[in-house]
Amino acid sequence: MSSLPMGPNRYGKSGIRLAVVDRSRPQHDFTDLEVEVRLQGDFDAAHVDGDNSGVLPTDTMRGTCFALARDGIDSVVGYGVRLVDRFLTASPGVDRALVTLTQHPWEAVVVDGAPHAHTFRPAAGGRPTWTVTRDRGEQATVTGGILGARVLKTTGSAFSGFLRDEYTTLPETRDRVMATTVDARWGTTGPDADHTGMAIDVPATILAAFAGHDASESVQHTLHVMGTAVLDAHPDVTWIRFLLPNEHHILSDLSAYGLDNPGVVYLVADRPYGVIEGVVAREGVTPEVPWDG
Amino acid sequence: MSSLPMGPNRYGKSGIRLAVVDRSRPQHDFTDLEVEVRLQGDFDAAHVDGDNSGVLPTDTMRGTCFALARDGIDSVVGYGVRLVDRFLTASPGVDRALVTLTQHPWEAVVVDGAPHAHTFRPAAGGRPTWTVTRDRGEQATVTGGILGARVLKTTGSAFSGFLRDEYTTLPETRDRVMATTVDARWGTTGPDADHTGMAIDVPATILAAFAGHDASESVQHTLHVMGTAVLDAHPDVTWIRFLLPNEHHILSDLSAYGLDNPGVVYLVADRPYGVIEGVVAREGVTPEVPWDG
Amino acid sequence: MSSLPMGPNRYGKSGIRLAVVDRSRPQHDFTDLEVEVRLQGDFDAAHVDGDNSGVLPTDTMRGTCFALARDGIDSVVGYGVRLVDRFLTASPGVDRALVTLTQHPWEAVVVDGAPHAHTFRPAAGGRPTWTVTRDRGEQATVTGGILGARVLKTTGSAFSGFLRDEYTTLPETRDRVMATTVDARWGTTGPDADHTGMAIDVPATILAAFAGHDASESVQHTLHVMGTAVLDAHPDVTWIRFLLPNEHHILSDLSAYGLDNPGVVYLVADRPYGVIEGVVAREGVTPEVPWDG
Amino acid sequence: MSSLPMGPNRYGKSGIRLAVVDRSRPQHDFTDLEVEVRLQGDFDAAHVDGDNSGVLPTDTMRGTCFALARDGIDSVVGYGVRLVDRFLTASPGVDRALVTLTQHPWEAVVVDGAPHAHTFRPAAGGRPTWTVTRDRGEQATVTGGILGARVLKTTGSAFSGFLRDEYTTLPETRDRVMATTVDARWGTTGPDADHTGMAIDVPATILAAFAGHDASESVQHTLHVMGTAVLDAHPDVTWIRFLLPNEHHILSDLSAYGLDNPGVVYLVADRPYGVIEGVVAREGVTPEVPWDG
Repeated sequence: MSSLPMGPNRYGKSGIRLAVVDRSRPQHDFTDLEVEVRLQGDFDAAHVDGDNSGVLPTDTMRGTCFALARDGIDSVVGYGVRLVDRFLTASPGVDRALVTLTQHPWEAVVVDGAPHAHTFRPAAGGRPTWTVTRDRGEQATVTGGILGARVLKTTGSAFSGFLRDEYTTLPETRDRVMATTVDARWGTTGPDADHTGMAIDVPATILAAFAGHDASESVQHTLHVMGTAVLDAHPDVTWIRFLLPNEHHILSDLSAYGLDNPGVVYLVADRPYGVIEGVVAREGVTPEVPWDG
Repeated sequence: MSSLPMGPNRYGKSGIRLAVVDRSRPQHDFTDLEVEVRLQGDFDAAHVDGDNSGVLPTDTMRGTCFALARDGIDSVVGYGVRLVDRFLTASPGVDRALVTLTQHPWEAVVVDGAPHAHTFRPAAGGRPTWTVTRDRGEQATVTGGILGARVLKTTGSAFSGFLRDEYTTLPETRDRVMATTVDARWGTTGPDADHTGMAIDVPATILAAFAGHDASESVQHTLHVMGTAVLDAHPDVTWIRFLLPNEHHILSDLSAYGLDNPGVVYLVADRPYGVIEGVVAREGVTPEVPWDG
Repeated sequence: MSSLPMGPNRYGKSGIRLAVVDRSRPQHDFTDLEVEVRLQGDFDAAHVDGDNSGVLPTDTMRGTCFALARDGIDSVVGYGVRLVDRFLTASPGVDRALVTLTQHPWEAVVVDGAPHAHTFRPAAGGRPTWTVTRDRGEQATVTGGILGARVLKTTGSAFSGFLRDEYTTLPETRDRVMATTVDARWGTTGPDADHTGMAIDVPATILAAFAGHDASESVQHTLHVMGTAVLDAHPDVTWIRFLLPNEHHILSDLSAYGLDNPGVVYLVADRPYGVIEGVVAREGVTPEVPWDG
Repeated sequence: MSSLPMGPNRYGKSGIRLAVVDRSRPQHDFTDLEVEVRLQGDFDAAHVDGDNSGVLPTDTMRGTCFALARDGIDSVVGYGVRLVDRFLTASPGVDRALVTLTQHPWEAVVVDGAPHAHTFRPAAGGRPTWTVTRDRGEQATVTGGILGARVLKTTGSAFSGFLRDEYTTLPETRDRVMATTVDARWGTTGPDADHTGMAIDVPATILAAFAGHDASESVQHTLHVMGTAVLDAHPDVTWIRFLLPNEHHILSDLSAYGLDNPGVVYLVADRPYGVIEGVVAREGVTPEVPWDG
């Protein structure tokens, strides 16, 4: 067998699910997280020689996540910073530690018009996500994001004037249903920004821009409007990257039954679906773009 | 080959996804449905002889669902009644037509403090579901339901004093996190009840009962409280059947790290999970219980 | 609040995942199971009064499944019988214990033309499943089954001569692609039948009947042929129930591009999908039919 | 609102599902594909100005995939090359066209010891996948891959001698169950390599290396062995990248029941799970590594 060196590599733990209850006030807080850890560094000995002396077990990553939550979580990003710091300390061969934290948001159930003190249900809207990355000897960096934020408008969206070829049969439309599930990631000025606030406010800006953009000529067009709105409203965001499926709602053709369909009945399609990916960035900022990697 | 007759059978279409937009007011309505159709009757010729002359294609069921939504949907149950009536008319060999309609609820997005007229996001809470069944020559019957309504409380739940054997290692607890995803079905007095209202109000009653039952000794105990509350508050409900997974949140044992854990950090487990199924019915009412079938 | 008695109910544990390794021969055996337990009986005190003294914790069910596998599993059904017996013993208030065991089948990896002694990959074909039920004072009964067995034929299937109405637009065809995912359950003569053998042989009979039935006029037609073939070949099977989705492969209409399509390119559709459910039973046998419940 | 330019972007269609039947021989061929298309180029006008004149609709991508399959598919990669060429022709503003094709492999059903001519079931093993990328004015490049290839060994795997800290509680083991689901991607010498053959042979090499590596000290260790084996055996592979979840099978602790467990019963865990990612490359080759992007 050849003796090839190990190329780029990293390892870690995914699917760490933990919940933290803050009982310090009558109204409890319930923070429900999925954590993912990745470590990068010099792991040639482990790969080539089977020498584990530099390998912190992924089970230890799991245990660390639970242990470091013992005193509660002031902010999710603060907890993430403590985690990456810990992993760099515990694992001397590691050059970069990365922790992704995705929240399943819950809200207090409203009973008799008031939020119940200790009963919760999943909140509407997407799941906030943050990635804290720290290279040894450097400051941590933080990206925020929102995953799975579905949104739909019943008018104010068009798609026409597009490029046609011999395989183009799509009719032009000046009024359609537009639906997507927003997955967005944004770069930030660093760990000290108000990440908890932005996890609420950036999606709200995205939603308002989506709703307000009734001159939409395409998902691409609305993507740019949403990205610009975020950069305008949130000084601590340096770039924002969207992944937007075009979740087609197709006006049902009822002509075979002798019926018209003036914007009433739509077929909700699963697939195929369009995918629009794009970045809006402040001048001079180079965002992470995984597909160009 | 033997010449065995055909036993019990039915057929139909699942996964019919359609959305209906009501544009008659400035505030649009967006109704997003998944429809399932089942027909039962004498289909021996189709099965035994390959004679399709009595078989309405399942593609026709799909088309019928779209065509009958052309003028909008006043109420989901009203639409379901029109569908079962149609299928009994179109298919003379059918004895029973059954339509299940499950709604993906959307809510108007709030922008600048007001609901937007034509932009929506998925609402919190579960998915309302209804089954309309009609036997030829009989009136239609209707069951309502709610699917996927997750709910959790951080205190007010105990599990102790249970039966023990040599395989029992579970510690007793007087204070735990209790979480479930409510799947409930309820029988009703018929098609004329206010099914649209009950789709909102019955889950609200369930949620309030769950929240208010701080003396909970088990999921079973709370199931009975929720069922009783529904029958007390909703005269048109004749029975209610719950399927309640016990979604375990396990207090993380941090003793290996020299730490206690006074109700702060929980492991969120996927499986295995407990399952509690039960019915509460008015006196003299015999509910449908699939597992006793 | 009303004081309503508890109606029908049961409880148990789902998602118990365990694997058993038999190392007694050089060629290891790897049995990978998902177990589900349900107990039925008089649990009024638990529901109405919060009295858990008769409630065996579902965590104990989990532990019992692991403990009773300590000495290996001769046959999955034998293990299931030991489990239901144990639960009836451990839980005096229980009238019926039910255990469902679903296998994830693995096969030895073939290396250099021979099966490797201790390396496995998931086998093709569906997942065998068994339900063992025992009522107190009665013998156990056993149903077998196969889940998720996809199968497809590129010719030998027609659908024509069907009932038409004004919503019927489906073209007739004498040659189509037919695809389904077989979910089948069968009743048996009891625990002593060769359930391990039938888990292999009954699906093989189903597959051969599906393949051989080139005169298929519909999924219903083939269902009856498959059911009859099983009852003919397997004397210990008393009835068989199929749930067969019709997984549509739609001949792609390329006429807009000036192309014909002589049975070459098909659109693989997810939904909607047809559903065909039916039973074939020996004379005098009354099968379980959940949808008639 | 700011007038920010559009940053990096691309768009396309996902979830295009088509099947191609080759009926030219008595033994039919059934090729079942999921296709994904992405186009990159100058789409500033579409994003910033809502000008769609340069935007080929994603619906046209779908139609093109069906039309170009009309005469069958000699090889999946050949079909992919025709697709990227077509998209570059049809869309003058595009600099890069990328098509990913993932196959759902089917095999002829064996009846009476012989493969049936036109009946198929899903084959064991993972899903082959290929990405064809072409930059305007350049040759196409091709990566191959295998997705979802689960594999497990019941002995021949250890994990010991690892780095410990105060959060490390994992016991060392010299004999464990090791399981993973191989997702691998490999770079190739170009479109003319035997991609169809490699889709069979590279996974076979991976499987054999996994099986044969009974001195495994870790998933990392086996990753390197598998990567080296592939580069040794397949001259047209230039690098290979693995994503290997560590699917934990945990020896069940039965001591609470007074039982030992000498490698018999294992808990099959879903999560958390370890993740090992790494590349093995020929000297001088720089592989794509998305996580370093």
